[in-house]
Amino acid sequence: MTDYTDHIFVAYRRRLAELKASTNPLAQGLAFIDGQYVPIHEAKIPILDQGFLHSDLTYDVPAVWDGRYFRLDDHLDRFEESCRRLRLHSPIGRAEMRDRLVEMVAMSGIRDAYVMMIVTRGLRYIRQYAPEECENFCYLMVTPFLWVMDEERQKKGASAIIARTVRRIPPGAIDPQVKNLQWGDFTRGILEARDRGAMYPILTDGDTNITEGSGFNVVLVKDRTLFTPRKGVLEGVTRKTVLELAAGLGLKVHLDDVPVGLAYGCDELFFVTTAGGVMPISELDGKPVGNGEVGPITKQVWKAYWDAHYDPKLSFGINYY
Amino acid sequence: MTDYTDHIFVAYRRRLAELKASTNPLAQGLAFIDGQYVPIHEAKIPILDQGFLHSDLTYDVPAVWDGRYFRLDDHLDRFEESCRRLRLHSPIGRAEMRDRLVEMVAMSGIRDAYVMMIVTRGLRYIRQYAPEECENFCYLMVTPFLWVMDEERQKKGASAIIARTVRRIPPGAIDPQVKNLQWGDFTRGILEARDRGAMYPILTDGDTNITEGSGFNVVLVKDRTLFTPRKGVLEGVTRKTVLELAAGLGLKVHLDDVPVGLAYGCDELFFVTTAGGVMPISELDGKPVGNGEVGPITKQVWKAYWDAHYDPKLSFGINYY
Repeated sequence: MTDYTDHIFVAYRRRLAELKASTNPLAQGLAFIDGQYVPIHEAKIPILDQGFLHSDLTYDVPAVWDGRYFRLDDHLDRFEESCRRLRLHSPIGRAEMRDRLVEMVAMSGIRDAYVMMIVTRGLRYIRQYAPEECENFCYLMVTPFLWVMDEERQKKGASAIIARTVRRIPPGAIDPQVKNLQWGDFTRGILEARDRGAMYPILTDGDTNITEGSGFNVVLVKDRTLFTPRKGVLEGVTRKTVLELAAGLGLKVHLDDVPVGLAYGCDELFFVTTAGGVMPISELDGKPVGNGEVGPITKQVWKAYWDAHYDPKLSFGINYY
Repeated sequence: MTDYTDHIFVAYRRRLAELKASTNPLAQGLAFIDGQYVPIHEAKIPILDQGFLHSDLTYDVPAVWDGRYFRLDDHLDRFEESCRRLRLHSPIGRAEMRDRLVEMVAMSGIRDAYVMMIVTRGLRYIRQYAPEECENFCYLMVTPFLWVMDEERQKKGASAIIARTVRRIPPGAIDPQVKNLQWGDFTRGILEARDRGAMYPILTDGDTNITEGSGFNVVLVKDRTLFTPRKGVLEGVTRKTVLELAAGLGLKVHLDDVPVGLAYGCDELFFVTTAGGVMPISELDGKPVGNGEVGPITKQVWKAYWDAHYDPKLSFGINYY
């Protein structure tokens, strides 16, 4: 019996088996640090880097799927804007960064990759120095694709909670549109989810609206309309892709505040992120979402999203060594 | 002409000159990482450490002053409680950590030290693993004392603002009593302060009460009473010391919500932190605090705080090598 995910996962598992059999010393990933390429498990950063000591950094995560970079320039656009807002300046320019990100994947032989670019404040912190006096650092990483939700859960749907013990950091404190690694609220949310027997937390804004979860945007389906929060969340590239695909699937989009109550009465629910794609949620706070199975619209969106990875307007092939 | 700070700073500058002339290869500091002691500027951590990749860690900062550890056990108590709340488990126990922190200072020859202990989630993140499956890492660091406020500003008083473009992360998102390095709100506050021609930001709770600043508690003086926020802030060891000393100085203490309006009408204002002690603020939002000079109560508190570093009930001497 085939599943709606099979056309993607069968070929992916074959590529993954090939990667595991590879003798390329970079097949488990590599990092670009201080002008050098190093295998990922040997890659180290200075303990005095303010990216560690004050989480003073921004980052972004594009992905490679089946040997093709997906929306790399969208991620670079967002990354540049995040740097600008934090007054960070990458020591390598956009063109060099883009070239290296392609080269690193090509060197590694990884066909399905999780890619990370990070700019940190560097060794000097702005408490003692002006931002323009700080020499910022850039780190690049390529590893095999990471799944926020495994294959089995993508087929059956996973469980989520709306967190009660933690709320999302408000935009007035840390701007969620500037991609950051200050995950204290998400970490608490994950712990609450586990304590309540579920996998994923959705955090509210503390004012009874839904925001986002631990590394993903939230999309509700009700009456063939996709509901997702307009503000207080990262403007995800995966969500953007899904919203762009919606018209072609005959779906309306409602980008606005999303009250918690709407989640309990929705037809379908899914999460979206680069490291996982479209992730169906079949149980919320211990109760089934809709009829408790992955719904028809989620399946359509799932397929359209992965098919889009082969659209030459959105992706380009990598010339592997 | 002697200043109220001279009895501390004159001897400190002499010790600092001795440290700078030292030939000890650890005189600029050292770290304990992965079972090894290494000079601080060579110390590195894995880029995959979740302490970096999700700021999933806690830390604490005791200090050594004139060869004596100050309130080390108070810092260890707080650190243990922070670990407990985040479900982190240090791979080395409290007794070993304490011994190493003393040994590291003794090895370095540093008489006035900034000391840091950090426990991170390690290489596995709880999104994929249960907390008990994650092998946590412990890093220890000793460096020469860091000053959040330099000597000149301690004598004259420094300038601060009440931030308008950023608010403090609320406790419901990230608990400020668990010492953390998620400084996005503080970093924004420092940038706003610089943009407004001042040095230090005070952040509000978004509901017109004062919380804390970028690494320090805030204390207002009005009618011989010290006002400082009861909640939504780190319970600082320096603040605790100052509040304990208050009775002996004939000062009352008001530990409760502190409305912003009170700051504009206070007699004196100072900040408190381990890495700086008692830091007088003489200008707030461009206007003088009180008469614009360091006030008599701030001076009394300043002196009592530093004198307490020689109290054998609060500190102990280190046997240097």
